[in-house]
Amino acid sequence: MSGRVRSLADLGESALIARIARRAGRQVGRDWALGIGDDAAILSTRAGQELVFSADAQVENVHFRFGRETPRTIGRRALAVNLSDLAAMGASPVGALMSLSAPPTASVATFDAIIAGFVDEAARFDCPLVGGNLSSAGEWSLDITVIGRCRRGRALRRKGLRPGDSLYVTGVLGQATLVRLKADRTGRRLTRVPTPRIEAGQALSRLAGTRACIDLSDGLATDLGHLLSSDGFGAEIDATVLPRPRGFLRDCALLGLDPIAVQSGGGEDYELLFAFRSERNRSAAEMLTRRLGVSVHRVGRVTSEPGIRGLPPVREGHHF
Amino acid sequence: MSGRVRSLADLGESALIARIARRAGRQVGRDWALGIGDDAAILSTRAGQELVFSADAQVENVHFRFGRETPRTIGRRALAVNLSDLAAMGASPVGALMSLSAPPTASVATFDAIIAGFVDEAARFDCPLVGGNLSSAGEWSLDITVIGRCRRGRALRRKGLRPGDSLYVTGVLGQATLVRLKADRTGRRLTRVPTPRIEAGQALSRLAGTRACIDLSDGLATDLGHLLSSDGFGAEIDATVLPRPRGFLRDCALLGLDPIAVQSGGGEDYELLFAFRSERNRSAAEMLTRRLGVSVHRVGRVTSEPGIRGLPPVREGHHF
Repeated sequence: MSGRVRSLADLGESALIARIARRAGRQVGRDWALGIGDDAAILSTRAGQELVFSADAQVENVHFRFGRETPRTIGRRALAVNLSDLAAMGASPVGALMSLSAPPTASVATFDAIIAGFVDEAARFDCPLVGGNLSSAGEWSLDITVIGRCRRGRALRRKGLRPGDSLYVTGVLGQATLVRLKADRTGRRLTRVPTPRIEAGQALSRLAGTRACIDLSDGLATDLGHLLSSDGFGAEIDATVLPRPRGFLRDCALLGLDPIAVQSGGGEDYELLFAFRSERNRSAAEMLTRRLGVSVHRVGRVTSEPGIRGLPPVREGHHF
Repeated sequence: MSGRVRSLADLGESALIARIARRAGRQVGRDWALGIGDDAAILSTRAGQELVFSADAQVENVHFRFGRETPRTIGRRALAVNLSDLAAMGASPVGALMSLSAPPTASVATFDAIIAGFVDEAARFDCPLVGGNLSSAGEWSLDITVIGRCRRGRALRRKGLRPGDSLYVTGVLGQATLVRLKADRTGRRLTRVPTPRIEAGQALSRLAGTRACIDLSDGLATDLGHLLSSDGFGAEIDATVLPRPRGFLRDCALLGLDPIAVQSGGGEDYELLFAFRSERNRSAAEMLTRRLGVSVHRVGRVTSEPGIRGLPPVREGHHF
């Protein structure tokens, strides 16, 4: 014994599941008739609602590295990026399932820290962990399925925009890329986790002028392409008005980066990009900022002509 | 070009998702307001129902090997083992999400065959693929979340058995282990996929005498232990009456295997094990066989004394 690191194989599957259930079990609220520990979790449904489902995986050395992020950050982030998909639908979180794969030689301390991060994030957004599974594997991966709820017919989709609509983003763009590059330079470990815009998405789903919405996981240019492709329209963006993090131009200069390329091509900001009916008055951004509870900036407009004008072209995604 | 194998990286994420959507898109029925292609899928819920959720991953070199199974079998199996969890709840399938991770160098032909297997199985069980995600990774893994539906309060749980209840299994035990061992000997590739007992589970959920149910993924001894641990009871099993596949004793003799050890310890049969109120007459198994649409055998009974008698002891699971 004497200080030897305990591995996942030392503990075994049942004991590991029990560790998760102990941490997560208290969160399961009245929606759930049954949480972790059976063949499946049971959710009571309500009339007049729709449920929404999304799944997203975080894979070691693709989405995270143990040298770069803390285990706690990896756990928090795995849920946060999934909650961002619920935000983009205007849905409120109902629960999550986690499939966790890890090498049998991995340490229990790492496992515990990842679970703790996940469960803390789950508590923050009222999204209890209700099920999932564990498997041994050659590398770590956390695959999360989230369940959300909307009033019937109110979910925000990618489809629905019209030429002339204004395009808005929440928050600032380029932050995630900059923080990651700075961490790479300094060797400090990343602890930043994106904030899923759950409340902003819900507010958008209640506003009559909202046409379509997507979250910015792959970067503005790529995700705007996804939003537009649903209807076959195009967009004109004014790259000079993209909202910037504090000190952004100075930091880009120090790191030798093109600010617009970072804001347009850098992913993982997990802000919302949405199309809104154009208003006659110029104060729509102010109204939206007030209603969504987060800063909102107009960045361009939808055009009937396909293609994106005003942003540098992008290459296809990072992961294949 | 000239015969060069196309890789997943050659095609890219968007094209791969489009390939999946083309195959799976037609299956999405009236329950789903939205399937693949947005930030999340949208399900219309009905009053008086419960939804159940389960997730299970199949990882390369842990749950399957490309040398041993065909890609099509891997795809079918990834869904089948998840449907088995719905069967154990007495639920009917509503839909599935798939997180697929694969090396960027993997061939598109392998990818297509896995998806084809999955989608065929989905069609067979009316369980449309409605969402998921793709990621590059060092190894293949298919993590599936299934969604099922039950009448409110009717889901079968692991908890609920009482001393004196009879224990039954559907089908035969030991088949999966035997087929795998035979394939290993002969070098033939495995194409067998377990049949999830969806209809049997639904029938059980309608019978007043059903107390508790689990599916046999890890083997009779282990899963019986899970069933019993929910209530703290024990069981007495008659290992001589465990239902055997045709030619089982002869095959075990040829392979030098202990038949009871194979039936008790070998996993992946995906039959149902359930506790049923004891009947005075001896024809309960006949009644259950008729109602469940699959052969049912009584294998023992629940005891107030904890522990399992009549089966060889088991070691903790295969995967950690």
